[in-house]
Order: sequence, then C-alpha cells, then structure tokens
Amino acid sequence: MSHLSTLQSSTDLLSTSTIIALTIFFSLLCACIVVGHLLEENRWANESITALLLGLGAGAVVLFVSKGNSSRILVFSEDLFFLYLLPPIIFNAGFQVKKKQFFKNFTIILMFGIFGTVISFCLISFGAFLLFKRIGVKSLNTQDYLAVGAILSATDTVCTLQVLNQDDTPFLYSVIFGEGVVNDATSIVLFNAVQSIDINNINALISLKLFGTFLYLFFSSTFLGIAAGLLSAFIIKTLYFGRHSTDREVALMMIMAYLSYMLAELLNLSGILTVFFCGIVMSHYTWHNVTESSRTTTKHAFATMSFIAETFIFLYVGMDALDIDKWKASSASAGTFVAVNTTLFALVLVGRAAFVYPLANFNTCIRKRGSSNIEFRQQFIMWWAGLMRGAVTIALSYNQFSNSENKETDDSALMITSTMIVVLFSTVVFGSITKPLIEAVLLRHTKPNVSDATDIPSLEELRILFIENGEANDTGENQPAAAALRRSGLRLLLTHPTWTVHHLWRKFDDGFMRPVFGGRGFVPFVPDSPTGAADET
Amino acid sequence: MSHLSTLQSSTDLLSTSTIIALTIFFSLLCACIVVGHLLEENRWANESITALLLGLGAGAVVLFVSKGNSSRILVFSEDLFFLYLLPPIIFNAGFQVKKKQFFKNFTIILMFGIFGTVISFCLISFGAFLLFKRIGVKSLNTQDYLAVGAILSATDTVCTLQVLNQDDTPFLYSVIFGEGVVNDATSIVLFNAVQSIDINNINALISLKLFGTFLYLFFSSTFLGIAAGLLSAFIIKTLYFGRHSTDREVALMMIMAYLSYMLAELLNLSGILTVFFCGIVMSHYTWHNVTESSRTTTKHAFATMSFIAETFIFLYVGMDALDIDKWKASSASAGTFVAVNTTLFALVLVGRAAFVYPLANFNTCIRKRGSSNIEFRQQFIMWWAGLMRGAVTIALSYNQFSNSENKETDDSALMITSTMIVVLFSTVVFGSITKPLIEAVLLRHTKPNVSDATDIPSLEELRILFIENGEANDTGENQPAAAALRRSGLRLLLTHPTWTVHHLWRKFDDGFMRPVFGGRGFVPFVPDSPTGAADET
Repeated sequence: MSHLSTLQSSTDLLSTSTIIALTIFFSLLCACIVVGHLLEENRWANESITALLLGLGAGAVVLFVSKGNSSRILVFSEDLFFLYLLPPIIFNAGFQVKKKQFFKNFTIILMFGIFGTVISFCLISFGAFLLFKRIGVKSLNTQDYLAVGAILSATDTVCTLQVLNQDDTPFLYSVIFGEGVVNDATSIVLFNAVQSIDINNINALISLKLFGTFLYLFFSSTFLGIAAGLLSAFIIKTLYFGRHSTDREVALMMIMAYLSYMLAELLNLSGILTVFFCGIVMSHYTWHNVTESSRTTTKHAFATMSFIAETFIFLYVGMDALDIDKWKASSASAGTFVAVNTTLFALVLVGRAAFVYPLANFNTCIRKRGSSNIEFRQQFIMWWAGLMRGAVTIALSYNQFSNSENKETDDSALMITSTMIVVLFSTVVFGSITKPLIEAVLLRHTKPNVSDATDIPSLEELRILFIENGEANDTGENQPAAAALRRSGLRLLLTHPTWTVHHLWRKFDDGFMRPVFGGRGFVPFVPDSPTGAADET
Repeated sequence: MSHLSTLQSSTDLLSTSTIIALTIFFSLLCACIVVGHLLEENRWANESITALLLGLGAGAVVLFVSKGNSSRILVFSEDLFFLYLLPPIIFNAGFQVKKKQFFKNFTIILMFGIFGTVISFCLISFGAFLLFKRIGVKSLNTQDYLAVGAILSATDTVCTLQVLNQDDTPFLYSVIFGEGVVNDATSIVLFNAVQSIDINNINALISLKLFGTFLYLFFSSTFLGIAAGLLSAFIIKTLYFGRHSTDREVALMMIMAYLSYMLAELLNLSGILTVFFCGIVMSHYTWHNVTESSRTTTKHAFATMSFIAETFIFLYVGMDALDIDKWKASSASAGTFVAVNTTLFALVLVGRAAFVYPLANFNTCIRKRGSSNIEFRQQFIMWWAGLMRGAVTIALSYNQFSNSENKETDDSALMITSTMIVVLFSTVVFGSITKPLIEAVLLRHTKPNVSDATDIPSLEELRILFIENGEANDTGENQPAAAALRRSGLRLLLTHPTWTVHHLWRKFDDGFMRPVFGGRGFVPFVPDSPTGAADET
C-alpha cells in the first residue's frame, strides 16, 4: 500500500527543503509580528531585537534537531538580500520620507553620509592594519584591511529610527535617516572600489579618478531614479486619466520602482540611490496621479513590504549566526577572538566619533546667523544612531571573506565570525539601550528644540520677501521681468541660499513639472500624502 | 586603468544573469500593463494574450541575440510557479469571490470541478491510449497516458473570467470561477496519484482507497485553510483591537495566508484548496477586524499581486515556448507532430463536452421546482470557458516528461512540445475568440437571465418562513423552543435544503463565530467589503 501513502504528496512537484525553509521563516515572521506587538510598550525591546533573538532561537533549534549539522536553512544568501530584501526597504524609505526636512538638511546628510563614511572607513582600515598584527592575525593582506574598513562602515539605523519620532524631532530623524541611506550606498561603493582596486599601484591620479567615479555613480544613479519616477508619473497621468484601474496603477508603480533598481544594477550604478530617489519622485508626482484607493494601497503596501523585508533580514541574520560551519572553520584561540572583537568594537566607536562631532560643529560654523546649532546631546544621539551594524555588514563580509576560493584561511573565518559578533552585539545590546538612552537624553530637556524650528519660510513669506527684493511677481512674463527675476534671484541666492533654491524649485515645479507629470493640484485634490503630513517641497 | 572600469560594478555582489533576467521580465511586465491598458477596448485582445505574445516576442529576441542557444532566462521553473506565482492568484480568488453566489452554486461547482475533471481525465487518457499508437507514438507507457489525461484536464479559465462580468452574469461567473479553482486542485491531485500509483496492481479496493484519499485531501485541506483564516481573525481581533497598526495587520494577513499554503504543502495536502478557503474566511472575518486603511490596502494589494503573478505566468509561458532545446530534442516528423496535436485538441474538446452537457442537465433534473434551468447557451459558455489550457498544464507536463532521468526519449520531448502548442494555441486563438463569442451568445438574448435570479431568500423572508413553520423565533432560548427549532429545521431541510443550510449557518455565524472571530457588525461598521458588494453569506 506504499503507493497510497505517497499519493498524498502533492509536494512531489516541489523541493521539500524549500518548503520547510519557507514554512519556518514565515512562521517566525508571524511570531515576530505578534511578539513585537506585545512588547511594544517595553523599554528594552523592539521589533529588530525580537526578530534577531527569535532567529537565534530558531537557529539553535535547527542546530539541535539536525544534531550539529547546520542545514541549508541557515545560509545567508547575498542575492536574496540585495535583490529582494533591500530594494523594498530603500524604496519605501524614499517614498515615505518627509521631503521638506530631507532636502532642508541635504548638506549635512551628504556630509555625514559621504565624508563621514569615508573618514570612518579610513580610520577602521588603518586601525585594523596597525592593531591586528599585534593580536596575532597575520594572514590578512592590505586589501582585506581596506575591506574590513568598508564592511564596518556600513551602519544600520533601523533601531534608532524605530525609537525616534518623526514629528517630535524632525531634524534628528531626517539627518539620521538620510545618513543611513547615503551611508549604505557609500559603503557598498567603497567596498566595490576596494575589491577591484590594484593595491600595489595607487597614486594621487588614481585616487582622484576614484573620487570622480564616485561622483559619477552618485549623480547618474540619482538621475536614473528621478527619470524612472517621472516616467511612471507621466505614464499614469497620460494613460489612466479618466479611466483609472487601481490594481494596474499599483502594479505599475511597484514594477517600475523595482525596475529602476534592477536597471541601475545592470548599468553598474548604485541601485540603492536610484530606488531611493525613485521613491521620492513617485511620492511627489506619481502618487498624486492615481485614485484615492491606489494612494492608500501604495502607502501601506510599500510600508508593509518594507516592514516584512526588515523583519525577515533580522530573522535571517539571527538564524545565520548559528551556522556551525563558520564557527568550526575558525581555529583562533579564545583570547585572539576576544581581542579581535574588542578591537573592532573600539574602532567602530572611535571611527564614528571621529567624524560626527567635527562634522556637526563644522556644519554649525558654515551655517550663518546661528539659525541652527546642533546641540551636544543631538550630536551624541547622531553618534549613537550609527553604532549599530546590520545585514549590509554581514553581506559584504561574506562577499569578501567566504566567496574567494583562495582565501580559505583561519583568519578569513575569524573575520566572518567577528563581524557576526559585532552585528549581533551592537544590535541586541546597543539596540536595547537605545530607547531608554534617547528618552533620557531628549526628554530631560523638554524645552522646544531650537534646531527643529523650520528653516524654510512659508510660501506667503517667500512671496513677500521676493516682492521686497524687487521681483515683478508672477504677473508679467515678458523679458524685462524675467531679467529682473534673474537679478533678484542671484542677489537672494547670495543672501538666503536655502530659501532661494527652495523658491526657484517651487516655481519650476509649479510652472513646468506639475503640469507635465501631475502632482498635487494638477490632479483631483487630496488632503494627505504618503508622508502623512505636509510635503510641499 | 582596468580597475577603474570595474570599480563601477556594484553588481560584483550579484549574479549578472539573475539581474538581466529580472530586468527583462520586469520591463516586459511594464509593457504588458501599458499595452494591455491601451488594448482594453479591443474585441480580440486581452491581457493574457498580450502577455503571451510579448513573451513570445521577447523569447524570439533572446533566441536571436544568443544566436540560437537558449539562455537560462527561458527555462520554466516549477518551484517558481507553484511556490510563488500560484498562491497569490488562488488566495486572491478566494478573497474576492462573491461568497453568496459561490456557496449557492456549491453543488454544481463541485460536480464540475471534481466529477467533470475526472471524466475529462478518463476520456483523454483513454483516447490518447487508443489513438497515439496508430499515429506512431509507441514508447509511452500506461502511466504516461494517464499523466497526459491529468495534464490536459487542468483548465485555465482566466481568459473567460476577464470577459465575463461578475455583476451581469453572477451564475456563470461563479460556476466557471469555482470550477477553475476546484479543477486546479483536482487535476494536481490526480496527477500525483498517477505518478505514485503502481500501474500493474490496480483493483477495485485500491480505486476505492484512492477515492477515500481524495476526500481526505479535500476536507483536510479545506479545514486547514479555514483554521488558518480563523486564527488570523482571532489574533487580529484580540491583539490589535484598540491600537491598530495598518502595516502590521496587512503583513500578518499576507504572511498567514502564505503560511497556510506552505503548511498544506508540507503536510502533503492541497495548498491550492487551503489557500482558497483561507482567502474566503479572511474576507468574511479578518477583513472586518482591521482598520479602514488596512481594508483598502489588502483588497487592492492582493488583487495587484494576483494580477502581477498572472501576467508574469503568461509572459513566462510565452518566453519558455521558444526554448530551442525542447524543440531540438523531439525528432518526430511534421506529420506525426500535426497528428498528435490534432488528436490532443480533439480530445480536449470532446473530453469537456462529455461532462459539461450531461452534468448541467443532471443538475437541472435534481433541482426541484424548476428554479434554475441552465440554458443551452449558458452550457455552451461553460464548455467554452474550460477549453483554454495554461501554466498548470505546462508545469505538470514538465514534471512528467522532462524530470525523470530514464525517459529522455523522443516521445517525451514530443509530448512537451505538443502540450506547449495546445497551451499557446488555445490561449491565443480560443482566447481571442472568447470575447466576441460570449458577447454574441449572451447579448443576443437580452432578457433577464432566469437562473441568475437569487435562489436564497432575504433574511426577512427566511424569518417569516421559519415562523410559519412553527419556529419560536429568537426570543425563547429554552429547551422546548430549541426542540421545536430542531423539528422545524429538519422539516425545512427536507423541503428547502439550500434555505435551511443558509439559515442555520447564519444563526451559527451570528451567534457564535462573529462574537469570537469578529466580522461585520462585531467591529466598527463599514459599508463595503472586498468583493465590492453585499456579501452577507
């Protein structure tokens, strides 16, 4: 009767191991959501930590059941991470970001995200290079040290952002959030540079060219993202106006966003930057061209997908940490192991402190009229927010230390396990301190936050300002008026740079972009936006 | 300077072939949506055909670019289909189905979906067995013939459902739709039975046991789906009441639905049935327990995912059809090829006619009081709707004729290419005739459709009927009244079976299920439901 028992297996068609893995992961995801909700009020826990700990627990069970032989379930796949989990998170970040705050703090975000990451990279690389030899880690070459720098420069700000409130501390939120996105892109670009560079053949010209390539990557990725977003807005505006179909609109937005990421990767650009800017443009134009139902759906569906991907990553990292093969491969003594980890932690702390405080103070200097000093407690939170390390770190570490065929040394295994420890420890320990810490630092000083006051005047203030400066308002579109505008614009640009850029952008947006690509006011009016607040950038 | 050119490759981290494949597929998806929208008013085209033809075109381009060597892009993967593309489609089917119509026509749906599929399976297997030997196909064994029957019994009703209107012809829509879901499950179960059965050792007892196993599969899969749906309703009702979080609610619904499918596959049940009933229960209970935004989001997000998966499948089938290796493997002469295809087509047409007309007329006989004759033109549309073959057919065909190691014969390759031709021809040719045909058949007779009039009385009518039959209404909950209810219920069950089942279900739903699991009326009231109309089942 054996044919009867096998009759029941409709899984004959499918590989059982995949099904088991998927069942386990999705059960754990459910558990994460439920437990995360129950622990919402808890001071020390948050959803990332819950997911990480649940993943560790599940990993332990799998290890126990498989009697010490780690199964395929535990293996971290870079493709899965970079192709399917990261894009929705970054896209949603762009889609839900408060654009006004983001662009207001654009300078400091770029400073932190680019220069900060580079400084951190240099310090960690150099520090590891100096210190590791004394500890007894000898087989790493210069390229490995540079890679360690890039790997440990990739921060994970999710824990902090879960604690900060976008409405109470818009400045801190937007800077930490923006830095996180730019940091991801920068560290991945740095890592690729390190992997492809010929280490024995560096000179000033090549360094300059590297910098040029970085700029090229930054601008072309941004451009591609903006183009994809505008294309989606244009298609939906032209095609669907009059006869909307919510499902098709939502599908088109999702697919075009994902396509922009894939296209960027195909063109060897930074998919992260592309999909981020695609999200920003989509929320500014495309989102206003679709039906009310599509708006609600996209807003929540994108957030849900990002939430699932984020939880999945933490689960994954947790389960992966117990992959026994990794631990077996490293034969370093306990002493060396502790020393390496302590060194890496110290370098992470110092590497971040080395740029947050100087750059924050430098930023205060170049901002005139004392409009927004970054207070010391804010600087402290900015420093703290970037101490956690996450999935990008692990993915890059695998890529450097496990994929290469000729590097199966003890020290490579040691680096992988150490990165794992840094990620786990920083997420669990630093992560659980974050909430009480930020509450203590921020709430003890309950006076209204100076630097969080808006720096950009309202439209009405702007108009008055421009009229005072001799602009001929919008009535005359003839040549002299335009010339006057250019002159007054130039004068204003020198005296109030941010205001002027904002004003000119608004004129351009209202005069050209919105009529072509849609956006609020050029399609049936709706009161709210995906950011849940005013987004009149 | 070679290290500078490679610096730009952030794709170092990812496998380029995957990126290329994803980019191509997502570009084609975009094109499908846009072209499908433009062709919406067209008589002959629909989105399935557009996707299939675009896929064929893209396949031709890939073939041309790769100079006749098919690349990995073209290969159809059963895992991708059964694990990721089919579940959202079936879940959404259950989630959006008009439950009232579905359960009203439950008997005929089960008759068509189970007995019809079995009849079709027997006829096609037997016909192929008799005719193929005469054509010159000699190397297939009995199991192969049975598999051909199961493979070609799996219908694809998407094309017809795109044409039919759920509001104008609710009876036809619900029967064809329901048959499609049950048919998928039945044919996959049949196929697995055929694959696992010992062909030389069949007797009446084993056949009976097979039937028993089928019933077990049907009921346990349904039960699992209902349990998963109720669990999600219960969790969301208990956990989130008072402090809702849209993203988490949506995530929980998605994940639990997917989990039910995986769990069913893991337990060797029918995932399709499970996820379908999970969808029905979720739309009846869970959907009413969440916030207004979650309702809009789930309704459209599930529909969008189903839409994307469906379009993706047709694209995939189109591209896969031009996989040159398959065509090379078969060395059958053109004559044999045409003969095999003609035979298969004839068998498909006859196999369906053989059960639609008898079963429809049988159904009319057992329904008393002439409440709903199924007219001949309706029978014709029911016959036509099941002529198309789709992705399930292709997936099963691959599984039977390409996976087995010892079957690399010419005839196996011939069977794969023939199935492909049946799928392509039926979808493109029959599919494009469907719209004009149905319009011609239905619209020529514009009188209100008799069988589409509701068969279930309103709640008020039911109450009057029950009072007339001596029920003590809902006022007295004491023992004699309950006994009276049982007596009157029994009497009614004999005279008005459908009404009584409906009434009893309603009492049970209102009295026990809704207070525990939520649902309309037991959570803040909302006017509409995911089906877009009244669904007071």
